Amino acid sequence: MLREEMHKESIDIYIVPTADFHASEYVGDYFKCREFITGFTGSAGTAVITADFAGLWTDGRYYIQAEQELAGSGVTLFRAGTEGTPSVREYIKSILFEECTIGFDGRCISAKSAASYCNLVKEVHGSVRMEIDLIGRIWEDRPAFKTSKIRILDQAVTGESVSSKLSRIREKMKEAGSDVHIISSLYDICWILNLRGNDIDHVPVFLSFLFITASTADLFTAQDCISDEVRRFLSAAGVRIFFYDTVYETASSIPSGSKILLDKESVNALLADQLHDDMIIDQNNPSQIMRAIKNETEIACTRRAHIRDGVVMTKFIYWLKTNIGKIDLTEYDAARYLDDLRLAQEECTDLSFDTISAYGANAAMMHYQAKKESAAVLMPSGMLLVDSGGQYIDGTTDITRTIVLGPLTHEQKESYTRVLIGNLRLSDVKFLQGCTGYSLDILAREKLWEVGTDYRSGTGHGVGHILNVHEGPNAFRWKRTTAFSKEEVIVPGMITTDEPGVYIDGEYGIRIENELLCVADENNEYGQFLRFEPLTFCPIDTDAIDVSLMSQEDIKRLNDYHREVYKKIAPFLNEEEKQWLSQCTQEITNES
Amino acid sequence: MLREEMHKESIDIYIVPTADFHASEYVGDYFKCREFITGFTGSAGTAVITADFAGLWTDGRYYIQAEQELAGSGVTLFRAGTEGTPSVREYIKSILFEECTIGFDGRCISAKSAASYCNLVKEVHGSVRMEIDLIGRIWEDRPAFKTSKIRILDQAVTGESVSSKLSRIREKMKEAGSDVHIISSLYDICWILNLRGNDIDHVPVFLSFLFITASTADLFTAQDCISDEVRRFLSAAGVRIFFYDTVYETASSIPSGSKILLDKESVNALLADQLHDDMIIDQNNPSQIMRAIKNETEIACTRRAHIRDGVVMTKFIYWLKTNIGKIDLTEYDAARYLDDLRLAQEECTDLSFDTISAYGANAAMMHYQAKKESAAVLMPSGMLLVDSGGQYIDGTTDITRTIVLGPLTHEQKESYTRVLIGNLRLSDVKFLQGCTGYSLDILAREKLWEVGTDYRSGTGHGVGHILNVHEGPNAFRWKRTTAFSKEEVIVPGMITTDEPGVYIDGEYGIRIENELLCVADENNEYGQFLRFEPLTFCPIDTDAIDVSLMSQEDIKRLNDYHREVYKKIAPFLNEEEKQWLSQCTQEITNES
Repeated sequence: MLREEMHKESIDIYIVPTADFHASEYVGDYFKCREFITGFTGSAGTAVITADFAGLWTDGRYYIQAEQELAGSGVTLFRAGTEGTPSVREYIKSILFEECTIGFDGRCISAKSAASYCNLVKEVHGSVRMEIDLIGRIWEDRPAFKTSKIRILDQAVTGESVSSKLSRIREKMKEAGSDVHIISSLYDICWILNLRGNDIDHVPVFLSFLFITASTADLFTAQDCISDEVRRFLSAAGVRIFFYDTVYETASSIPSGSKILLDKESVNALLADQLHDDMIIDQNNPSQIMRAIKNETEIACTRRAHIRDGVVMTKFIYWLKTNIGKIDLTEYDAARYLDDLRLAQEECTDLSFDTISAYGANAAMMHYQAKKESAAVLMPSGMLLVDSGGQYIDGTTDITRTIVLGPLTHEQKESYTRVLIGNLRLSDVKFLQGCTGYSLDILAREKLWEVGTDYRSGTGHGVGHILNVHEGPNAFRWKRTTAFSKEEVIVPGMITTDEPGVYIDGEYGIRIENELLCVADENNEYGQFLRFEPLTFCPIDTDAIDVSLMSQEDIKRLNDYHREVYKKIAPFLNEEEKQWLSQCTQEITNES
Repeated sequence: MLREEMHKESIDIYIVPTADFHASEYVGDYFKCREFITGFTGSAGTAVITADFAGLWTDGRYYIQAEQELAGSGVTLFRAGTEGTPSVREYIKSILFEECTIGFDGRCISAKSAASYCNLVKEVHGSVRMEIDLIGRIWEDRPAFKTSKIRILDQAVTGESVSSKLSRIREKMKEAGSDVHIISSLYDICWILNLRGNDIDHVPVFLSFLFITASTADLFTAQDCISDEVRRFLSAAGVRIFFYDTVYETASSIPSGSKILLDKESVNALLADQLHDDMIIDQNNPSQIMRAIKNETEIACTRRAHIRDGVVMTKFIYWLKTNIGKIDLTEYDAARYLDDLRLAQEECTDLSFDTISAYGANAAMMHYQAKKESAAVLMPSGMLLVDSGGQYIDGTTDITRTIVLGPLTHEQKESYTRVLIGNLRLSDVKFLQGCTGYSLDILAREKLWEVGTDYRSGTGHGVGHILNVHEGPNAFRWKRTTAFSKEEVIVPGMITTDEPGVYIDGEYGIRIENELLCVADENNEYGQFLRFEPLTFCPIDTDAIDVSLMSQEDIKRLNDYHREVYKKIAPFLNEEEKQWLSQCTQEITNES
């Protein structure tokens, strides 16, 4: 059906990315066009369709899952980032022909990507069509365009007023020499306006655009989401409200002498297409780095959320370890038990992403989602990997523990211990301000590379505050990729996950993840030293440790962490749980 | 006098960089204008002079030395790279005024830097004068413009013919869409033409430019340096010879439709000024990465040079340790003894840089040069830091050892041990291809940062093959600076130094430096793993080690290295030296 539509429109190559109109990482169901057309359900990927070819590109987290979900579909899998695999752009370049036409929904692709495709086709005197949504034409039971109620976050949680944030942004606009700032990133808009919505599962944002000038701030969103209270709140901050769909027209009417600050990597191509290119100052949204550096209030709130989350996780692990082999359980059941525990808390408004509960070989798929019907049955052997998190009224959490259910092989223990050492070394580093995640990443990876193993992903990502659980610009990575080409120095207030792993296809998967807050250490003649404090407190399963692989320093790091875990979590447990926690956070030694 | 000349020419700000006409790191005496005008003798620095101000910018290696040499000169020292210190450009920007004129010798500044100054003055409607050499006017006893005989390197040493190198470069020119390639980097020209000269102390290059087209290769150099043999050799490779000074005229006569590949960071501003900017394709010289990746012949030759050099260093350390306290010695004497030993070898043609022999507090100056009159007397206490290297007929070496002459403080031992651990950890890492020096640097630095110490420099630099002892693009660094903004993945064949240190102003300095060759390790489903092999073999002084700070892994690394040292060096020693080497490469343990 898509090919018929392509034929009608004389489109030779149709690109279906995974995106909404705001370059969001996770998207509402309405926007899941790439999943609809390929069947691959992962959160990241791009499909390319021609008259006689269909390909899907996805990254290392999803290689195994995509292979399984695409099997028999006729869609070819491209493992992006693997040596010798062409990128989407390289592939398209290789199949271009004279006067070729590339099509995509210009609202679902960034201005920057679109420009790169425009440049490609120019060479063959072809053209780009970005104003049509071909998937929309053929997707009969497409989910509704979701709009949900918008709520106000109290300043006791945000720590900064909308006016203050707007004034900081206007200062940056001035520095950049711009009159207008167009923001399409939902994370930025929600952070700036101290508002949250519910338009994307697990990400409390609402679909909107924001235009800021020296004297105005105009929000484009669904009017029926806005209560009178929100209306008054926005009005007090000088924010005017317009209909969501009028944003393109408004953009096209900006006077041509204006200088418009926008991020071509996040503003969609159709919106940018309303502007003359020489009006655009292409820079990161100033609010991106502002929201990445959490203020004292956000940090205090986040710490509270993490204690609650650690208590839930600890109770869950206790329950799992005491019940395994006694009651029938699948991965799916375990995930639901954990989700119920988390959501039972008054302060927990949502999960921060779909809980990953992966047993045995399933855990080799980094972003595996257990389905009720096909979920693996948990046995008293091997390990269960659980990656989960919550959206709380005061913060967002993300934690992974790999839980021992029974006997492990020597290899599994070695892998687990090497992952643990990496996790501990990164979290314990003291470093000079100026380091980026690229400088620090190897601390988590070194012990795995030593034995020729790797996890095919970054070591960690930034975490939003009551926003997307993945946010930039901070990250721990060793390799630049198209998706992560920028880099940002790690500074106090940034929160980044520390999650090395081992994933052995068809056998097992291990990941240990804590969130780390960057804080100041000493300032001396060499500069400002920084370090990390863990925000995540939950026992790390010592049953999987081969202590002979750990140095005295590694052992001390684990014991220090576990002492803190007990101190912070025990007060919220019942006697049985407390006793168990005391045992499993006991000091380990390598003395025989 | 300079200010008078500036006044005559209506120049408000005069910039004196440290450079010849080829952006060489070290320069011939003729080119030492910055040293002439400021008195600071370090190898890197930029002076800025106005009617009422004189400033010198230099990097962390030279802070202490510059402070001493500038004392009382009226020249203000700017510690480049220190937080809060403006860069040269930032400083100049801050003092610009309406219709201001900036001047510099356009042959001594890169096209890229010059463009950046042009942009600066444009904002104040000022101008740039780049055609005058004001220092030349006032420098009465300026050394002669040195030109020395050119010699041919045998293919048994280079491993690749000139024709083959030219053809690889022409391929890259074609890829870049260029008709002409202008090369002003002496390292590149010497590497391409398999020729060496002697126009810069310790760097066997000759002053020249090279223009390459699809069918021609034109060398601009001093004609009297070229013997008939070299003339025939070049002619056979299709290389024509022109007068050095005609290069600017030749450049200006290149047809305006041409596309010229050149590196604006290495081609001088006056030369680039002969070309229309839209003719220029600004890229690294293709030969830069080619020469950084040593071929099998170059590697085999370099290994041989290092064994010789290790023998010399071992003999020197033995001599020093057995004679200290018995004969009167200064730092200067020690350096001369070592230089004599090195140069006495038939295969050694020159030092690769001026030997650094720094005792006690002098070693806190990274690039300290002992002067005969003022050299410190060596006592049987503390440490002597010796950083030295040779130019051999088959390779270039660079090695640092910090030698214990007598009792050390606990702090000194701790610093030494932490430096050693860093050196060993970096040299022992196994990593995936794709890593740059920025990913690996922290392995050398982590143990120092742990206690709030740092060395204010990169951890290591590339090493040329019978060329400059410092070469890019490979390096181990954690911080991007203006001088080192590019980065290159480390690949097999690259040679990089590993030289962490501790420098305590007024107290002591420690550095341990080995050269590392990158080699392939296993290739598996995760990619191509790489590792390093040390090229440098010379004992590391165990008298300074506090073994309690070392992990079992660290101890094993040192013992493994010392075993190799003994195996490779002992055969070339006399019985006494051999016995001593056997002792000082003995296994260490931390068992009490």
